[in-house]
Amino acid sequence: MKLRIIVTLKNGVLDPQGKAIQHALGGLGFEGVDDVRAGKIFELDVADGTSDAAIDEMCRKLLANTVIENYRVERP
Amino acid sequence: MKLRIIVTLKNGVLDPQGKAIQHALGGLGFEGVDDVRAGKIFELDVADGTSDAAIDEMCRKLLANTVIENYRVERP
Repeated sequence: MKLRIIVTLKNGVLDPQGKAIQHALGGLGFEGVDDVRAGKIFELDVADGTSDAAIDEMCRKLLANTVIENYRVERP
Repeated sequence: MKLRIIVTLKNGVLDPQGKAIQHALGGLGFEGVDDVRAGKIFELDVADGTSDAAIDEMCRKLLANTVIENYRVERP
C-alpha cells in the first residue's frame, strides 16, 4: 500500500528556507511570488492492512516534529 | 494562486535518507514498511496568471535538480 505523508511547518513558525527560496526566485527575475513554504514529503510502501493508528504513530514518533510541524497522510 | 511543487528523487537514484527512515521505523517496531522515499514539497503563492512556462522554469532553475530529481506541479 502506497502512502504519501506530507510534513509542513505550522502557520506562525518561521520558515527561513522558504524565505530564501522566495528571495532567490525574485533574484532570478520571477515576479509575483508572494510566499514560499518548504516542507517534506515521504512516500512509504507499507504492508496492506497497516492500520491508520500505526501510520499516525509513525508520523508522530519519527516523521514529523509535532511541536512545529503538521502532517497529513494521503493515499494516492 | 497557490501551487504545490513536489520534488522527488528519480527512480534508480539512491536515497540514503529514505533508507535511514525505513530502518528507524523498523527499529521502532513498525513492521511491513517495504520502502521509504524522501522528497521535498514547496507551497508557493504566486500571482494569478503566472504562466505554466514560468512555473516550469522556476522548477528547473531553482527548485529541482533535474539530473537526479523529478518534479511535478499540483494545483490544490
